[in-house]
Amino acid sequence: MIWEDIDIHAKEWVKEAGDRIRLSFEKTLNIETKSNPNDLVTNIDKEIEQFFIHKIRSVYPDHKIMGEEGFGDELKSLDGVVWLIDPIDGTMNFIHQQRNFAISIGVYENGVGQIGLIYDVVHNELYHAIRGKGAYLNENPLPLLKETSVKESIIALNATWVMENHRIDHNLMIPLVRDARGTRSYGTAALEMVFVATGRVDAYLSMRLSPWDFAAGAVIIEELGGIVTNLEGEKLNFLSKGSLFTAKPGLHQQILRDYLKKEQ
Amino acid sequence: MIWEDIDIHAKEWVKEAGDRIRLSFEKTLNIETKSNPNDLVTNIDKEIEQFFIHKIRSVYPDHKIMGEEGFGDELKSLDGVVWLIDPIDGTMNFIHQQRNFAISIGVYENGVGQIGLIYDVVHNELYHAIRGKGAYLNENPLPLLKETSVKESIIALNATWVMENHRIDHNLMIPLVRDARGTRSYGTAALEMVFVATGRVDAYLSMRLSPWDFAAGAVIIEELGGIVTNLEGEKLNFLSKGSLFTAKPGLHQQILRDYLKKEQ
Repeated sequence: MIWEDIDIHAKEWVKEAGDRIRLSFEKTLNIETKSNPNDLVTNIDKEIEQFFIHKIRSVYPDHKIMGEEGFGDELKSLDGVVWLIDPIDGTMNFIHQQRNFAISIGVYENGVGQIGLIYDVVHNELYHAIRGKGAYLNENPLPLLKETSVKESIIALNATWVMENHRIDHNLMIPLVRDARGTRSYGTAALEMVFVATGRVDAYLSMRLSPWDFAAGAVIIEELGGIVTNLEGEKLNFLSKGSLFTAKPGLHQQILRDYLKKEQ
Repeated sequence: MIWEDIDIHAKEWVKEAGDRIRLSFEKTLNIETKSNPNDLVTNIDKEIEQFFIHKIRSVYPDHKIMGEEGFGDELKSLDGVVWLIDPIDGTMNFIHQQRNFAISIGVYENGVGQIGLIYDVVHNELYHAIRGKGAYLNENPLPLLKETSVKESIIALNATWVMENHRIDHNLMIPLVRDARGTRSYGTAALEMVFVATGRVDAYLSMRLSPWDFAAGAVIIEELGGIVTNLEGEKLNFLSKGSLFTAKPGLHQQILRDYLKKEQ
């Protein structure tokens, strides 16, 4: 497999999709006042996913596609080459803010991440990695992540997870928030993962995401020495919904040991 | 008082201060690895505050100045014209992210906000208002805020406030987070206030801020029909630390009545 060729195509398509999303802004803002903004965004989500599927099928007819909007394939396994696509990650931000959303594309082979692309459309920032070839923000290589500790870290997590909820014992999370330097919440898994990749936050935890939310980010973060698992510290499953816990080296082990797996 | 003249000066100084902060980035990134990043940022904070004080005193020697870094005046009252300055709001973001921080300047006369300027340096976005003359993002007028309800709203608040804490009964906050469409946390009061002003979030709550954190934002939000109070729904006190609760019209009343002041 020539990953560089696939990467060149993927980048070109992501940029073109970004142009389409930017062009939709004026329409979005006009229509939002007249009809249900959720419908409109669903249309753009769908249009962008279909755009990618059309492009991928025309060049790589044997690749499989798993997309948030469901226009791809129904997959029972990750055999072969699979594209995991979120056409607009952070849909609520897209509607309310017209920023803080991203296109997220991971390309996997037999379950192993080979390419990750996350495009912050509004800021024209493309984060991308090919396995073993480093990770980049536009044309600039990103430095490897350095070890850090909870007390010096900013952790991305939503307020929901420190309240009683169905997914995690919030009493495990509260001490982590107390001990960290600060917490943030941006409402977009793809960008929260590139914030880990760039060191803007030191860790990110989420209780329920889909494979297309974290497929691209996992390739980029692992390429920089960061650690990507579920909340139990296990390998991610790219065929079903699940939790996500990603952090800088050292910090990941510390949070697992002293907080998430602490004996109560 | 010719507020337009003061506004022209303030804008010019804010832009010049932004240039100085941008120039500091390279230095920041180099020095961060060698010494305590908190010290370095304090130096930039201090330098920018002293820059403003020098400029203000040279043109308006009778104006008073209250600044985060303490180089201004010790004020016992808000009589006369008072500048409330936060040279870098969102210091932790400034160190960790080199984005998501802002310069915040409010100009008050006898306790009434007349000018508000919040400058998102990295994105070159200047939010500004003169009382009674509308609010602007750069040269574009911002539309008046529309009424909304909790179930359609994105609320900016930190995870800390839904955990047991010294400042508010977290049991009042938890139902609000459950009922809202979503929550976010950006770690910068000044930008969280302009997100309310621009409708990117619908409300923002914080338990402990200083007058220079919210002085500029209050002018901008009120100019657009938004409501700015403390958590009890009372007028803000610009001489001491306190809580902040700002929201779109309708939403502010709903949150106060159904959540913050709910009989338990």
